[in-house]
Amino acid sequence: MSLVQAALAGDRRALARVLSAVENGTEEGRAALATLFPKTGRAHVVGVTGSPGAGKSTLVGRLAAEIRERGQPLAIVAVDPTSPYSGGALLGDRLRMRELATDPGIFIRSMASRGHPGGVAHATHDVVSVLDAAGFPVVIVETVGAGQAQVDVARLAHTVVLVEAPGMGDDVQALKAGLMEIADILVVNKADKPEARQTVRALQRVHQGVTSRGHHGPGAALPDEETVAGWEVPILETSAVENQGIAALVEAIEAHREYLRASGQWNNLVRRHIRAEIEAWLWRDLLALLEARVGAAGLDAAIDAVLSREKDPASVAGALLARVLQEAEP
Amino acid sequence: MSLVQAALAGDRRALARVLSAVENGTEEGRAALATLFPKTGRAHVVGVTGSPGAGKSTLVGRLAAEIRERGQPLAIVAVDPTSPYSGGALLGDRLRMRELATDPGIFIRSMASRGHPGGVAHATHDVVSVLDAAGFPVVIVETVGAGQAQVDVARLAHTVVLVEAPGMGDDVQALKAGLMEIADILVVNKADKPEARQTVRALQRVHQGVTSRGHHGPGAALPDEETVAGWEVPILETSAVENQGIAALVEAIEAHREYLRASGQWNNLVRRHIRAEIEAWLWRDLLALLEARVGAAGLDAAIDAVLSREKDPASVAGALLARVLQEAEP
Repeated sequence: MSLVQAALAGDRRALARVLSAVENGTEEGRAALATLFPKTGRAHVVGVTGSPGAGKSTLVGRLAAEIRERGQPLAIVAVDPTSPYSGGALLGDRLRMRELATDPGIFIRSMASRGHPGGVAHATHDVVSVLDAAGFPVVIVETVGAGQAQVDVARLAHTVVLVEAPGMGDDVQALKAGLMEIADILVVNKADKPEARQTVRALQRVHQGVTSRGHHGPGAALPDEETVAGWEVPILETSAVENQGIAALVEAIEAHREYLRASGQWNNLVRRHIRAEIEAWLWRDLLALLEARVGAAGLDAAIDAVLSREKDPASVAGALLARVLQEAEP
Repeated sequence: MSLVQAALAGDRRALARVLSAVENGTEEGRAALATLFPKTGRAHVVGVTGSPGAGKSTLVGRLAAEIRERGQPLAIVAVDPTSPYSGGALLGDRLRMRELATDPGIFIRSMASRGHPGGVAHATHDVVSVLDAAGFPVVIVETVGAGQAQVDVARLAHTVVLVEAPGMGDDVQALKAGLMEIADILVVNKADKPEARQTVRALQRVHQGVTSRGHHGPGAALPDEETVAGWEVPILETSAVENQGIAALVEAIEAHREYLRASGQWNNLVRRHIRAEIEAWLWRDLLALLEARVGAAGLDAAIDAVLSREKDPASVAGALLARVLQEAEP
């Protein structure tokens, strides 16, 4: 039995080895991805993102325990470089995390945030694909809520949970405008803190009538993508430390999946994800062609021409692309 | 005298019109950019980013006043959709912001966060280029500290100021790991709050010996870019509301510029920015070719093939690129 077959049959050590091969972009990893690809597309991928300090990792642990209690197996992918996971085991003995780590219905994978040949976003996508093919009905992806990681999770997840800590004061309007566009579910964690009610009320006040924009596009490349409309973003209070509000969060996540399915938006979302993935491969392929046909020295010369203001970036890019195209025919 | 000449001669209404043309990607705007390009490359571009609620806009107002007191003209570009600016005027009568808005040595430009033909990052870059060419020695770009906007500012600014509010508690380690890689200067604003000292001390503790990674690469496309090393990220306390710590912040910004210049890192940084810009144009050009040679129907068919698991995204991308290349020759 091959490693991939063993992984599909439920051998967790085989699965871990397949994931390492995939993460490292080895020949074996690429072959595994190709074999597994037809089996993908079934998992509900849930992104959990938010500021450092919002308590994401503890919340993910609680969420996992609640989903397990309801009988579903699940996988957790921690892309957050600060997650308390290490080599598949959860660090820290607080809460029931140790219990979770020994539950055979849970698979935890911690991703290094650097050193992936095609970038961490690509590697995360591939890892989630393998877990999807391996039959986990739910895959939770935990990412730090800033910069590229937050953008990337929206290209990968069907449901994005944005976790915030209370105490944003007057700037709830800012939160709404700036961040809500990536959130399908908004969680004010640390609801045990006195400021929590105030934050939630303020959010609810500014939020009336606002509906989710679904997942916004992958930035500059696709500024005008369609968005998922018609889902009213729920604002939930949780206290991960005190294990409060977790059932309601699981129910909101399930309700969002049902909404996507019933409205037909699931399909639109998946098509956008596929498009983003095709574009990512196109870009990798183009960079490889540039490398082969123009090379580092050619690119340096192009940068020099812009640096000296001899040429502008748009003309230089046009000339580089022309060189790639002209040399396309053997 | 042309509009561009008038803008260069100091006519602020002409400058605003040039900026609108550039922002809207009109023919006139593109022509203006080409004319102005040789005059760019002189401004010190300072990005101010951070979570909603950190008090960025007030801090930028204070910063601008302090820089003005030292005799330098400056421009502010507010990309943050929640900034209290509107049509070049500052909203709100708190602080000295109204005063600032009537100061002829200050130019304020508020950017719409949507509706730019090539995406907001591209438009921001072009707006900053025009202000640079117009002779402002300092251009401050204020962006919301989340998602793509935060990534984009690192591709544009020479100095990135990350503004945080106090009260992150134990999760300072997370802040360090997750966010510091984009910051050249870290500011704990709202230093009047009781938690501020604790946050600063905790940050300083975890921070010992950590040096700036400079600006990290533009995400997945360039994961292994070189970084600017050797600058010790200062951790400053400010209270924008009480106008405390602003002079120290201005001095840290100037010290960072001096560091970049003296170490030769300025040039490396500018080369990376140019490379990112060339790559952005390459991507736009490739998308235009795809549109022309494959078209929306062809792309839809490719997405369908992946959706049905008939083909995987990498093969589909390879086939699309081959079509673009094959049809390159007339």
